[in-house]
Order: sequence, then structure tokens, then C-alpha cells
Amino acid sequence: MRAEMISVGTELLLGQIVDTNAPYLSTVLSALGIDVYYRITVGDNAARLAETLRTALSRADLVITIGGLGPTQDDLTKETIAKVLGEQMVMDPESEKVIRAFFERRGLQIAQSNLKQALKPETGMPMPNSVGTAPGVIVEKAGKIVIALPGPPGELMPMVEKSVIPYLSQKALGAPTVLVSRILKVVGIGESAAEEKVKDLLSNRNPTIAPYAGAGEVQFRISAKASNREEALELIAGLEQKARERLGEFIYGVDEETLESVVVHALIERKLTLVLAESCTGGLIAHRVTNVPGSSNTFLAGIVSYSNRAKSDFLDVPEDLIYTHGAVSPEVAEAMANGAAARTGADITLGVTGIAGPGGGSAEKPVGLVYIGLRTPDGTSATKNVFGGSRIEIKLRAAQAALNLVRTWLLRDA
Amino acid sequence: MRAEMISVGTELLLGQIVDTNAPYLSTVLSALGIDVYYRITVGDNAARLAETLRTALSRADLVITIGGLGPTQDDLTKETIAKVLGEQMVMDPESEKVIRAFFERRGLQIAQSNLKQALKPETGMPMPNSVGTAPGVIVEKAGKIVIALPGPPGELMPMVEKSVIPYLSQKALGAPTVLVSRILKVVGIGESAAEEKVKDLLSNRNPTIAPYAGAGEVQFRISAKASNREEALELIAGLEQKARERLGEFIYGVDEETLESVVVHALIERKLTLVLAESCTGGLIAHRVTNVPGSSNTFLAGIVSYSNRAKSDFLDVPEDLIYTHGAVSPEVAEAMANGAAARTGADITLGVTGIAGPGGGSAEKPVGLVYIGLRTPDGTSATKNVFGGSRIEIKLRAAQAALNLVRTWLLRDA
Repeated sequence: MRAEMISVGTELLLGQIVDTNAPYLSTVLSALGIDVYYRITVGDNAARLAETLRTALSRADLVITIGGLGPTQDDLTKETIAKVLGEQMVMDPESEKVIRAFFERRGLQIAQSNLKQALKPETGMPMPNSVGTAPGVIVEKAGKIVIALPGPPGELMPMVEKSVIPYLSQKALGAPTVLVSRILKVVGIGESAAEEKVKDLLSNRNPTIAPYAGAGEVQFRISAKASNREEALELIAGLEQKARERLGEFIYGVDEETLESVVVHALIERKLTLVLAESCTGGLIAHRVTNVPGSSNTFLAGIVSYSNRAKSDFLDVPEDLIYTHGAVSPEVAEAMANGAAARTGADITLGVTGIAGPGGGSAEKPVGLVYIGLRTPDGTSATKNVFGGSRIEIKLRAAQAALNLVRTWLLRDA
Repeated sequence: MRAEMISVGTELLLGQIVDTNAPYLSTVLSALGIDVYYRITVGDNAARLAETLRTALSRADLVITIGGLGPTQDDLTKETIAKVLGEQMVMDPESEKVIRAFFERRGLQIAQSNLKQALKPETGMPMPNSVGTAPGVIVEKAGKIVIALPGPPGELMPMVEKSVIPYLSQKALGAPTVLVSRILKVVGIGESAAEEKVKDLLSNRNPTIAPYAGAGEVQFRISAKASNREEALELIAGLEQKARERLGEFIYGVDEETLESVVVHALIERKLTLVLAESCTGGLIAHRVTNVPGSSNTFLAGIVSYSNRAKSDFLDVPEDLIYTHGAVSPEVAEAMANGAAARTGADITLGVTGIAGPGGGSAEKPVGLVYIGLRTPDGTSATKNVFGGSRIEIKLRAAQAALNLVRTWLLRDA
């Protein structure tokens, strides 16, 4: 099966945003054994989109469009697909109901343009959007398949995982072949070093293993083809075991797990409570922890002590400690963690203090210097880190390191 | 002048790397007033690259290829360009000298494949590579221009800045034309409603105005072509004024500004201090505020009061208030803001409490219900919101609404 991908959006052509959907979708198609020969980006222009669709349909079995499903005049992907395939646009009652309910729940007036999103080419099969109001659609016509997906990655990815992959697995792999993937997530080691550890496995043919560098972590996707799911899982298990022998505790989770979800679930399971005292990460760790549903079962409170006074008022960090060692010091990091524990009685507390930049650095204490204090029932200790990158990257890496400290303590203590 | 861009590389089609070159080049071309109608990604395959080049040359005046200039067998961009344009490949003595010197300096043996990089289509003008060994090339033929650039961004960008921009400025702007853009950022109104307000302006030809829906906000890009920058800015100013008359205070900023940067800078300018009391947003507002360099000049502290006890211990919210009205209530939102102010003496405080879901909702208090308490020198008030979407989107929208409350209070008070 040959595929082409068409990203639709003038903002893409103008370079205003980087297309991360297309690479994601490419890895999905590649894992399904579907070859992508061309990927085209075209603006919000009906004539050029139609020409692109016609060319793609003349060369490929499967054409996937990304974007242009919104409510505005600019959004014309579904209409153009219908036109090129010689179909009428019809209202999909189920999608209409979902969109009306979406607006009613929020007490908002619905505009005619919002209902436009419920239209689909007449023979199209709508795909529900679990996050936004724009449903996707699959049209099969004259031996070709056209799939239209929404542009926002937060809407596209769940639709691909829930609707597109099951649909294409069956189409692409035909009767007796399934493709199953599993992602190993790795933290606390760089991409090159992680790759070095599994170097000889990278040339494996079935299952395959391929690295992908994420934000502050590395992911390895293991994919296996087999005649049924059980066989594929067995193949994966074999390679996963080898990878685990090499990467050990650097692997924090698999598939949809995040570092924060792994930490939160481990804390809940162990009936331990967490309190955060954040200075340079500015609330990012609390934000990530509270992104995990159910985190209120372990996370009691976070203190973003951005001023010295907040460190004394809310965390009882002695003023003379700050005066003697500086706010960015192992002593203050430990005192923040200890103060948070004393105030709340939490089992595990973190104290994070550092220089996120761009200003505030010195030769002795450069931008990127971050001390992380961790207090557990075993006691309190501080680790020193120097992170590179922008202000936002330093915050991200510090948050990643702090969460990883909790994770590794939980492993050692298990 | 119409352009197409061709990114060459199987690793791009497989999704192994994200193409950041093409967006960068798009902004460069857009600034030069060169319209990009199509951007195509194709693998390391001579036949498909040749077909793509022929199609692009039939539609565009300028075709820019990215990648495929390396020494390996896979790298066949220059040869394919020569073939499509009916040219021979010849050795460029200057490039050969540079490559030989590069290897000598490093004490490395030079391979025949490395010298291949010094080959160019016979009428091509080589562009020096200040970083690597692969020179770029410009070929002018039959009224068309083909420019071949190396794939690594660290090699492409200096070549674009030093060679391509000067060359194209002269070609494209010849009859002097520049294109200037400005982005208006809008919050507190939905995409459809915002677009409705400027509907008649969307058909404007020069300058143009086009909407783009971001996360919890809408952006309008105004772009003008003119013979010089001053004229373009005047055109933009005219349309911007009309858009501002329609959108008024929904416009929070322009270009690189973020809602948090606008709020932080306005607070600093007015010498006002900020303290946050967050429950359902879980630290996200503090995280966004502290993403702004210099935010420590206004932001003193944040309390993530994720448990009822944290609300009483750190914010002095009376326990019976929580018992009587529930933690998610306008009374508690106000009490959180008041407690944060009493504890810290901050001028402006926010108290945010709600149900981010997926659990914890009821008929009376559904998932997405969020109360935001704002305390200012004028007094304390709470607003009720019901947001849709996932847990993470509800947090994002609540943070957006809370920051927007501070912004609009600052406007009214100005």
C-alpha cells in the first residue's frame, strides 16, 4: 500500500508553525508497513488543494490530509475532497449532536459555521474527535482511500490511535498480518548514550527497534509483524527483554505513560504523599503532577517560593541560611524540602532552586545551575545539576530530573 | 515570483526527523515577498525526485531543494537537477580545493565519494558551505531558478543568510517589493466569533488579514506588500486600526507577545506584585508566569492548594466555608485570593478552584466548572466559567481566563 500525506494550511507554508503531525503520522504508517512516497504541504486554497489531491490519488492508494477541518471560511478540506471524488456534502446527524452538546455544555451560542464541521462527503465514515469539535472522515472510493484528520496535534493523535490505526491495520496488513508496537521510555541518559547501549539491536528486522528523542527523554519504539497479536507480542517481549537488560532502570515506563504518571501512580500505590517546593521550576512540576488524573490522592500542595520572603514565610527557610549560602545552594534546596515536610507532614518533598536565566547567572553560579533537595523517610539530600538550553528548557530539564529523583528513590526503596 | 520547496530525504518521510528547514525557509521567502504554493517532501529516490522537480518547474519560477548533497550513494539531488535541466555534471575546482583543504586540516584521508560533493551542473553557480563540505548551487535556466541547499540546519542557515537572501533579494524584489507581517493576538472570544467581527476584512487583497486558532486564543496575521518597509507598515497600520476597532480589548498583544508576558510586563510597569492561589490549574499559571524572563520582579509566590488542608494551612480559607459551600465555589475562590493577599501583602492575587476531571463532576458541579477569584486594590470578586475539553485543556483554558481577568482589570484601572 502506497500513501501520500497532504498537510493543509497557509500558516504551515508561511513557516509560522512547524508540522509535527506529519512526522508522527509517518512513523505510524511506517510501523504499519505502508510506504509514504510524497508528503505535500499546500495552503488554504481550494484550487491548489484539489490539484494536489488529484495528483496524489493518481499515484497512491491512500491519501491522508491533515488540517482544514475548522469552522472558518479558510477550512475547506472536506468540501474539496468531496468535489474531487464527485460527492455531495451531507450533514452527519451524530456529529451534529456531538457539536450541539459541546456548545450547550459550555452555555455558548452555536454559530452556523460551527455546524459546518458536522458536514461530510456522502459516503464518508466520520471519526469521532474525543477532544475538539471537528470530526475526521474516511472515504473509500474507486479502490482509493482518503482520510481527513484535524490539524491540532492534541486532536489528531487520539484520532489516529483510536480510529485510524485500527482501520488501517486491517486494510494494510490484510488478513493474516498484524503489526504491534510498544514504546519504551527512557530518562536520565542522553540519546547517543542510550542508542550506544542498544546499538546492535537497531539492525534487527522483525521486530524492529528505533530511537526517537523527546523532550528530556528518549523513546524506543519496538514494532513486530506477525500473523496474530499474540505472536507479535511474543516477538516484542523477546526484544524488549534484551533492551531492558541494556537500559535497566533508565526505562521509566512504556507507551502512554509519562514520567509524572509513573511517579504519581507509584506514590499512590505506596500510600505516600507528595509536597513540592519549587523556585526555578516555577510551578512546572506541580503542573505536570496535576496533569495526572487522580493525582489529588497523593499530591497535597505545592509552594512556588519565587521570592526569598516566600521561602521563609511558607517553608520556614531561615533567612540567614539564604544570606550565608545564597538562594541557589544545596543548603537552601534541602531546607525547602525539609520546611515543606514540616509544614504539611508529607512523606516525600522536593525543594528545587536554581538559575533559569537568561539573567542572574555568574561565573560561580551560572545560568542552568539547579540544586534539587529530596526529603524522604530516609532523610534529606541535595543533588547539583547544570542544564543547558533556554529558560524554558532549563525549567523542563530540572522538572524531569526532580521527578526522576523521586522515581529512583521509590525503586531503591521498593 | 512563485516558489516551491522540495525537502529530500527518506528519513523525513519516515518521520525520523522533523523538518525545521522548510518552515525557516518559508519565513525567509515570505519576507522577500515570494509566494510559496507547495512544499513537497520526497525520499532519496532519483525517479520520484525527478518527477517532483519537473512538476515544480512547470508551476513555479523558483524551486528550492533541501538535502541530498552529501557524499553517499543516497545523495543524488544535484545529479537529478542536472538531468532534469539537461545539463552535464562538472567538477568545480574551487569547491574541490575547499574539500581537499577540509580533509587535510583534519589529517583525514579523502575518499572519492567526498570529491563527488564538488560536482555541479555545468552552468550552476556554487555557494560556499561555511560549516560543512557540501557546497550549494544555483542554476538559472530557461527563465527558471533552481537552488540546491544542504540538509543539516547548521549548514543550511548560514548559506541562506550569506548567499541565498542576497541573491533572491535582487531577483525577487528587483522592482523593489517587500512583504511585512504583523500578528494580532486575541483572547476571551472564540475563533468563529472573532472572525465574524472582521469578516468583511478577510477578503482584503493588500494588506491581507487571516485568522489562526491557537491554544485558548486566536491570532490574526496582517501582511502587506509594498515597495519599501515604511509603505508596508503604513498599509498594515490602516488595516490594524480597523481590526482594533472591531476586536477592541480582545486584542491582548502582537507578534511574539504571550498573554503571560503582557500581564507580567504590565504588572512590573505599574509596580504591582502578584501572588497565585491555584487549585484546579495545579501550578500552570505560576509556570506560565515564570516562563517570562524578569517575572521575579512582580511574582512573589504561588500556592498550589490541592488539598482542603492546604487551603486552610497556607491560605487561611476557613474550614467551615469549604464545608458549607464546597471547595469548588465562588466563596472559596474569593477566600483563596483574600488569604493569599493577607499572607503576602501582594497587590493582585488570584484564587482558582474547579473540577478539571475526568472524575469528580456531578450534575450540579460538572467537570469543567471553574471559579476564579480576583483580588485587587478595588476589592475581591469571583467569576464562574464552564470549560470543555480534556483535563489538560480545562487547566489551560482556566489559566487563560485567569490571566485575562488580571489583564482586563489592569486595562480598566489604567
